[in-house]
Amino acid sequence: MDNTPPMQKIIALYLERELPRINAFLQAETDRLDESVRPPIQHVLAAGGKRLRPLLTLLAARALGAEGDKAYPLACSLEMLHSATLLHDDILDEADLRRGRKSAHIVFGRSETILAGDVLLALANRLVADYGQPRLTAILSEAIMRTAAGEVKEIANVRNTELTNEAYLDIITGKTAYLFQAACECGAIIAGSGPEIEQAAHDYGLYLGIAFQLVDDALDYVSPSDVSGKPSGGDLREGKLTLPLIGYFNSLPADRRAELEARFRDNALSEVETAAILDEITRLGLADRTREAAGKYAERAREALRSFPDRPEREVLDAILHYVLARQK
Amino acid sequence: MDNTPPMQKIIALYLERELPRINAFLQAETDRLDESVRPPIQHVLAAGGKRLRPLLTLLAARALGAEGDKAYPLACSLEMLHSATLLHDDILDEADLRRGRKSAHIVFGRSETILAGDVLLALANRLVADYGQPRLTAILSEAIMRTAAGEVKEIANVRNTELTNEAYLDIITGKTAYLFQAACECGAIIAGSGPEIEQAAHDYGLYLGIAFQLVDDALDYVSPSDVSGKPSGGDLREGKLTLPLIGYFNSLPADRRAELEARFRDNALSEVETAAILDEITRLGLADRTREAAGKYAERAREALRSFPDRPEREVLDAILHYVLARQK
Repeated sequence: MDNTPPMQKIIALYLERELPRINAFLQAETDRLDESVRPPIQHVLAAGGKRLRPLLTLLAARALGAEGDKAYPLACSLEMLHSATLLHDDILDEADLRRGRKSAHIVFGRSETILAGDVLLALANRLVADYGQPRLTAILSEAIMRTAAGEVKEIANVRNTELTNEAYLDIITGKTAYLFQAACECGAIIAGSGPEIEQAAHDYGLYLGIAFQLVDDALDYVSPSDVSGKPSGGDLREGKLTLPLIGYFNSLPADRRAELEARFRDNALSEVETAAILDEITRLGLADRTREAAGKYAERAREALRSFPDRPEREVLDAILHYVLARQK
Repeated sequence: MDNTPPMQKIIALYLERELPRINAFLQAETDRLDESVRPPIQHVLAAGGKRLRPLLTLLAARALGAEGDKAYPLACSLEMLHSATLLHDDILDEADLRRGRKSAHIVFGRSETILAGDVLLALANRLVADYGQPRLTAILSEAIMRTAAGEVKEIANVRNTELTNEAYLDIITGKTAYLFQAACECGAIIAGSGPEIEQAAHDYGLYLGIAFQLVDDALDYVSPSDVSGKPSGGDLREGKLTLPLIGYFNSLPADRRAELEARFRDNALSEVETAAILDEITRLGLADRTREAAGKYAERAREALRSFPDRPEREVLDAILHYVLARQK
């Protein structure tokens, strides 16, 4: 008997059909690149990932009546823009692994990877230009600017214990949600939806993106059932303040809070203290509270979806909201 | 008495009028950016530079009949694209200085500088999108891809003594000439010039760009009269093969050549040997021969210019060819 929940099944069916086509398009477009720049680009794209952004573009475009294969180049541009930011991020973070494989800059060199990211940004722009709708370029350029600004703010606020919930939301909206928003809004535009529906697609993408990042931040404080039984606590170790940790500091009595915040700011927490904080965050249910916050944004996204016409793709977009809220990794 | 040669005077007069306007536009556009990303961007733009690319766009557009202020956003986009590559290049080269000032990544950090480069690429795209002519975006995106590919090939060929003249030309066309070409071609497009004149603008920019880089490479082997009396030989020290050095290796008897190339490949040349090579390159007039090669490309650029209508800006474009060939720094 098939026990897959119906929502996940809807997405799975859609992915089964669409993922090979998205991947084939990405392969064909990058095969045409100069061989000097191709390897890091195909490396980051081959590492897989959820292909969530191109899927959103496809779904929004079709939910709103775009015909046939029109949306593939645009959808794939979104994955290229996202992958370009990953190539650059890996250098920022000095991350050695990406999606379980060695990062491009470790395999191909830092300079080659920075330049490959630039090529991927430009390739995405070139594909989008072919639609003959300069608004698409404007929206995607704006999204890239905001994504970069979000990342800069995140870096600037590492170990800043004065980061408020609002400033945290501003950071995650920047670094994650604007590209989701652009993915959906651009899909609506090529479907020729008109301003109201475009705004609805924009809102759906924006709120979905915020929910997605909130769940991501919650997952960092949750025990993965399949591995060690311990949460990774990567954000805590890296000095990144997210909602669970902000909530934890807020829960402490003033003295204890001042002391612990000072040690966190100075990157002076011992492994024992770190483990204790992770335990406390679990005990206080702060990861779950972060998921609840995500749920509120998902609800706003769902509301935006109500103005979409009644097509099967609307159901898939709705199922994606469930998937994003429920995901365990 | 004013002894300035007439050609330089033409450019100087044009620059006097246009530079403040270009700079004011760049300032106004970057003032609007999120303050988190603004500092490295305004740093690299404030460092000055020749503003050659925006000037070419303005001149091409006006030479071909574009009206009034139409060309400024496009022209400034070219400077933004160029500056974005500079921000990323400084990290590639680990260069501490840029145009005599500390590089952005030294002042603001590496991550912030990579992201600032991404913002500048996106800002340029957004400005170009406002023209409503997707071809501009396509041409500029193509130019950025080729610029990056040229840089990757340059890095891949450091200390590669088998680099041929043709491969060297391919590298400098990529890393320098395509952006010059795009600057001129896009200027022609917004003037509504039609395919033939657009091709002429394209050719003028391409050949000017090759000539510009050849002269740049020649200057690296020429004694600057105002400082030490010694050429910097930066390219030789960094293992970069350019026309003067390729010509020098070609001039040696086989034994001597094999020995010296091996030491160059191994980065094992002593300071005395390096100085001797620099002297020999001067003695053999190889920097001058590189300038002569530049002259041939400038001649092709001049030919392309013949199909431009007889307007004052055509004279300035012609004067720029003289300036590029004659420049001493």
